[in-house]
Amino acid sequence: MRSAPVVEETATLDAQYMGHCLELAARAKGCTAPNPLVGCVIVAEGRVIGEGFHPKAGEPHAEVFALRSVSESDRPLLSKATLYVNLEPCNHYGRTPPCTEAIIAAGIPKVVVGMIDPNPQVAGAGVERLRSAGIEVTVGVREAECQRLNEAFVHRVRYQRPFGILKYAMTLDGKIASSAGHSLWVSGEAARAMVHQLRSECDAVIVGGNTVRLDNPLLTSRHERNPLRVVMSRTLDLPSDASLWETTTAPTLVITAAAPQHPLIPQLQARGVEVVHLESLTPTTVMAQLYQRGMMTVLWECGGSLAAAAIAEGMVQKVWAFIAPKIIGGSNAPAPVADLGLTKMNEALCLEDVSWQTVGEDILVVGYLPSRSPAPSPQ
Amino acid sequence: MRSAPVVEETATLDAQYMGHCLELAARAKGCTAPNPLVGCVIVAEGRVIGEGFHPKAGEPHAEVFALRSVSESDRPLLSKATLYVNLEPCNHYGRTPPCTEAIIAAGIPKVVVGMIDPNPQVAGAGVERLRSAGIEVTVGVREAECQRLNEAFVHRVRYQRPFGILKYAMTLDGKIASSAGHSLWVSGEAARAMVHQLRSECDAVIVGGNTVRLDNPLLTSRHERNPLRVVMSRTLDLPSDASLWETTTAPTLVITAAAPQHPLIPQLQARGVEVVHLESLTPTTVMAQLYQRGMMTVLWECGGSLAAAAIAEGMVQKVWAFIAPKIIGGSNAPAPVADLGLTKMNEALCLEDVSWQTVGEDILVVGYLPSRSPAPSPQ
Repeated sequence: MRSAPVVEETATLDAQYMGHCLELAARAKGCTAPNPLVGCVIVAEGRVIGEGFHPKAGEPHAEVFALRSVSESDRPLLSKATLYVNLEPCNHYGRTPPCTEAIIAAGIPKVVVGMIDPNPQVAGAGVERLRSAGIEVTVGVREAECQRLNEAFVHRVRYQRPFGILKYAMTLDGKIASSAGHSLWVSGEAARAMVHQLRSECDAVIVGGNTVRLDNPLLTSRHERNPLRVVMSRTLDLPSDASLWETTTAPTLVITAAAPQHPLIPQLQARGVEVVHLESLTPTTVMAQLYQRGMMTVLWECGGSLAAAAIAEGMVQKVWAFIAPKIIGGSNAPAPVADLGLTKMNEALCLEDVSWQTVGEDILVVGYLPSRSPAPSPQ
Repeated sequence: MRSAPVVEETATLDAQYMGHCLELAARAKGCTAPNPLVGCVIVAEGRVIGEGFHPKAGEPHAEVFALRSVSESDRPLLSKATLYVNLEPCNHYGRTPPCTEAIIAAGIPKVVVGMIDPNPQVAGAGVERLRSAGIEVTVGVREAECQRLNEAFVHRVRYQRPFGILKYAMTLDGKIASSAGHSLWVSGEAARAMVHQLRSECDAVIVGGNTVRLDNPLLTSRHERNPLRVVMSRTLDLPSDASLWETTTAPTLVITAAAPQHPLIPQLQARGVEVVHLESLTPTTVMAQLYQRGMMTVLWECGGSLAAAAIAEGMVQKVWAFIAPKIIGGSNAPAPVADLGLTKMNEALCLEDVSWQTVGEDILVVGYLPSRSPAPSPQ
């Protein structure tokens, strides 16, 4: 009869320490691709004796940082410690040795895991290895939050594509610019600051040639970390003096179907812009290109036509829509999403897991597109 | 030194009883035009001894109902009672005798008023009359809420126009229908129920001919009280069998610039539809027509072109925008507001006093257009 409260207390503590792991993991947002965000906490005698997170690909995993952080005097406590980690410890030799072996070697008797690693090289084998070494393993603490934090990693592993986020800002009457194409500014300062933060957490930002011609955007994050700025331009009909060609703050990649002899190419290259030729230039081929570069999260900051193509091809998983409480009007003023070929309102793509918040004077709606991703390719 | 807490306590009680007045007043929403919404509470010895509200034009005012509701045994308490009312008591003979005289006759020593009546026939004279009779009068308790509750009345009195509300439901990508014109349904059930409630609180609902042709709406409230359904149609190019021509549930008024010999007119009249000819058919002339009929709150449930015209002419004061978290796409899919002639984003009409809430799966944003109303006409 005394076990129930103990179980409950353990569950509360597990959830609390897993929350700490999630916070640690999130510190490296935008820096870890193609690796997941992972935080780890080691607890003994009711206190944290070690913690760490995975800072970037090529660096040790979170578990290793956490084990290293345990002080000499606390080392004897490892034999009765619990290790918390939001993602299943790896069991394979990658750029670093398997974390399972490090945990076993440290003599830790209990491990609490947030979620199983979707990576087929792990996928439960890490937990198996720990259990076979006699370690007590709990799996699935705050699992939904763990899955959410690593949604881009999971998507990348499952579909061999980066995770796509479509971000736009529109007026309360559904326009992303005036009928004359003027868009400075739809949303307020707080929303724009939030977009800068979002960019710093993404690996790439994509626009089309039209956005470069009309808006001449910078697409930087105003943070230390900037995403790769990607321009999709079929014909390279682009201005020779766009802000994006200034590559000292952030790198720029132009992906084009234009002939390699196009005269703009050497001009761009001279300014440090990388130019890649793709025979077929579509959201899918561009995302494949970015996947090959190890990218995990890609932000679509494009106009309505490219946004519609990206949605139609399943290259957008999440939508960030800022809505400014203002009315601009305009039958021909551009809207965030052009033709999707849907003619009945009941065919509309209903977002899932929708959340909304005010950001300054604006409203931010975030949701997920119903899954239209390509089927996972055979392993 | 003892007065401060007493003052504070009085203020709290005043606010509380004024809140009760507002609740009572709101019970008659949609029924009082052209009269204001008024609730009245009479308090003595710390309890409510009488209350009432103005149910509809032609009926007695709230103060009279409140005084009548005082029981015989409580009548002696009137000589030490406080009367609360959200709008200044009238001091003129209209369809009913002045409330000031009823209050004075009842021997009430103290009156707390929410706001001064904007009606130039009252405009402070009611308070003056009470004070001249030796009654202690406090003015301005919860004044902002009182003004808000009677915003349509205040607008009507000030500008000799009904108060216009533009309501629309759009997708998260800013469309009120698909590119094929299909709009069933943009918003969910909870939002639609809220629109029914809103209609029941309005005196008229306006649509254009295009909405009748495309959507064939009912525009009823599904409540006991229905607004007058108004169709603006320049040419009377309307179907002969629209749902709006069924007038047993709710009345329909067609306002047109078409010649009085138009063959549809007798057909409509035969079904109980009223047809009015206006040489110049604009949002302004239609609102003038509805003003003459004593209307106070008019709901624009029209498409983007008529909405734009109504906004441009200052016939919309408030916007109710439902946003459904779904994406339909469509470069030519209709948006809520057509051309306003604004070319720069910084010219957009920024809503004021914006509030937002979730309604079922949808979001409702409510705000006020910056004042573009015609100057008050000379009294």
